[in-house]
Amino acid sequence: MTNFLATKAMFDLPEGKIYLDGNSLGAFPKAATKRMTQTLEQEWGELLITGWNKAGWMEQPTKIGDRIAKLIGAETGHVVMGDTLSIKVYQALASALEMRPDRKIILSDNGNFPTDLYMAEGLIHSLGLQHQLKTVDPTDVVNHITDDVAVVMLTQVDYRTGRLHDMKAITKQAHDAGALVIWDLAHSAGALPVHVAACNADFAVGCTYKYLNGGPGAPAFIYVAPRHADTVRPALSGWLGHAAPFAFDLNYTAGNGIERMRVGTPPILQLAALESALDVWDMADINDVRAKSIELTNRFIAGVEAACPMLALASPRDGKMRGSQVSFKFEHGYAAIQALIARGVIGDFRAPDIMRFGFTPLYIDENDVDRAIAIIADVMQNSLWNRDEYKTQSRVT
Amino acid sequence: MTNFLATKAMFDLPEGKIYLDGNSLGAFPKAATKRMTQTLEQEWGELLITGWNKAGWMEQPTKIGDRIAKLIGAETGHVVMGDTLSIKVYQALASALEMRPDRKIILSDNGNFPTDLYMAEGLIHSLGLQHQLKTVDPTDVVNHITDDVAVVMLTQVDYRTGRLHDMKAITKQAHDAGALVIWDLAHSAGALPVHVAACNADFAVGCTYKYLNGGPGAPAFIYVAPRHADTVRPALSGWLGHAAPFAFDLNYTAGNGIERMRVGTPPILQLAALESALDVWDMADINDVRAKSIELTNRFIAGVEAACPMLALASPRDGKMRGSQVSFKFEHGYAAIQALIARGVIGDFRAPDIMRFGFTPLYIDENDVDRAIAIIADVMQNSLWNRDEYKTQSRVT
Repeated sequence: MTNFLATKAMFDLPEGKIYLDGNSLGAFPKAATKRMTQTLEQEWGELLITGWNKAGWMEQPTKIGDRIAKLIGAETGHVVMGDTLSIKVYQALASALEMRPDRKIILSDNGNFPTDLYMAEGLIHSLGLQHQLKTVDPTDVVNHITDDVAVVMLTQVDYRTGRLHDMKAITKQAHDAGALVIWDLAHSAGALPVHVAACNADFAVGCTYKYLNGGPGAPAFIYVAPRHADTVRPALSGWLGHAAPFAFDLNYTAGNGIERMRVGTPPILQLAALESALDVWDMADINDVRAKSIELTNRFIAGVEAACPMLALASPRDGKMRGSQVSFKFEHGYAAIQALIARGVIGDFRAPDIMRFGFTPLYIDENDVDRAIAIIADVMQNSLWNRDEYKTQSRVT
Repeated sequence: MTNFLATKAMFDLPEGKIYLDGNSLGAFPKAATKRMTQTLEQEWGELLITGWNKAGWMEQPTKIGDRIAKLIGAETGHVVMGDTLSIKVYQALASALEMRPDRKIILSDNGNFPTDLYMAEGLIHSLGLQHQLKTVDPTDVVNHITDDVAVVMLTQVDYRTGRLHDMKAITKQAHDAGALVIWDLAHSAGALPVHVAACNADFAVGCTYKYLNGGPGAPAFIYVAPRHADTVRPALSGWLGHAAPFAFDLNYTAGNGIERMRVGTPPILQLAALESALDVWDMADINDVRAKSIELTNRFIAGVEAACPMLALASPRDGKMRGSQVSFKFEHGYAAIQALIARGVIGDFRAPDIMRFGFTPLYIDENDVDRAIAIIADVMQNSLWNRDEYKTQSRVT
């Protein structure tokens, strides 16, 4: 049984704040400072170039990939770290489309995170505009998996509402129709048990700065199913994905399996911080995290709904049907979130009217939830958001 | 006049080592630990998600880009940080090819760093194999700039020999032939004065972990000439390159100018280390660095050639014709480099037979050069490299 008091103690959380935005940027694991100082001073400073061998930097992307693999139900040796999630979406999609040359439709939904759609748009343009990105309502995806679909590309947990797609059923339906499936796990990894292998996913991608707490700009990951790993062409064919990077051949030969999805030089400092964050996960069981997340989010929904009739639940009411976040619709959501932040409850706003709160059991507990409910009740019942200072939109919330 | 004693004092260099591999991974700027700890604890730890605004994280890619702009002779506001150099090569090339739809040749040379060629190969494959990557001898590039060339894609300083291309002349010749030019500045930025604007370069890309000392995995940069910046289509069209990233539109609209070359979430921890490294550059004049680099490399060549007749100079003898490195050819170069590393002289090996030494005046001085020459003389004259322990090839040198 996961000891959540112990995991919470591993984070440095700011005094007087209740942090309900770990779904956007996870909290800071205390041990990261020591780990980073070691990487800076003992590894970079002392070993310099030899750190690539002696400190194991070159293997970090696959070594850390194996730790991610455990959290997403992937086979060991089939996840690698690197780049950003946008780049990994592009890489997976470009690779997948080549595996279905006779099909031209990419099916996604309008609840997908926009960058996934933008990267697809950019790729389609590069490929000569013969492909079509079909973006339907999330609930309607299953009605559009026809035998002309090349790739179904979905984010499992909706970034605004927290609505959860059925990975197993959709993957099976797509395969039955001859399509491939790419799952974006941005809001899934570390939020709930994911089983990419058991669900037969073809590709999965995700980021590590949300529920995995890897820090701002932490690298992305990519999973390629073992059945494709040695045959897929990595569209972004960089030197560290080459079979022999240090032979400096003039021609590209793809590396073994997941190694070929590496591109350029890995971000060793970001990976060091991420490693510290994953040490917390060594103490946690994702099933316990999920159970507690559902408890916390149910408690939050009940408390907020009882106190704030002006807020309309935008997330599925059934905990099993949502990720680890709760969203409410409110016309003045932007100002309300600013007012809450000023009172120490850190949530965020997603246009046009979504107030979003993330729940990360590793460091958020019942007491935090109850205090947050009380503050939200006060802000909403007394319209404390209705001040000019809360209404000016800044670039990021 | 740059005070090189003062710049050297800003680095933490390992005792008893002479580091001649700053052309591969720059040395560790001491101030980076404090800066990183602040980013971890005061920014990430305290500000959490609000760090994107309050700590200015979101602007780091363009703010730091402006500091790089000064070092490469680019206009302010036309350089942005992000991703790896391989990705930036792909982005520049894909964007450039679209600007010359009727031309199908990408001209490069066989001294280019392989990843540039690999990324081009991958792109050509994605584009349907209608393009051709023509890779000629570096000295022969000027003879192949014909009016069917879409893009000339070159690394200014050869990673093995240090041979320098004439950026101004080649760019002019390419433009006269109607082609675009992409310059890879991996071994130029921080090594010598670069004038991308004065040379009329169309695109430039580079990395920041070599002469700029940004640390292992430091992010890349991309420059787009102002005349193209508002019209170029960024092939890798990620959300942070969108005109309004936080509007979460379902369709992509490119941001203003260089902002559109941003892709995903920037690596804030890597950028923090890079900022510390750039503080050293605020104390240095690149013209002084270049003058001292030529002095040091001339001194090194003279000393090594006098003592080691078995080493054949692989770099141009004229300092003005090479970057900030010196390479020698030697049949047993791999073992010789290992023997030198064991004796504290850190250079590196590039297949098949290149012994490579980089000179970074910010922290390497005449005394280092003289001590290195003495050790190389001893190792070579006494064949100290001829031991089994130095002959086993490891993955990275």
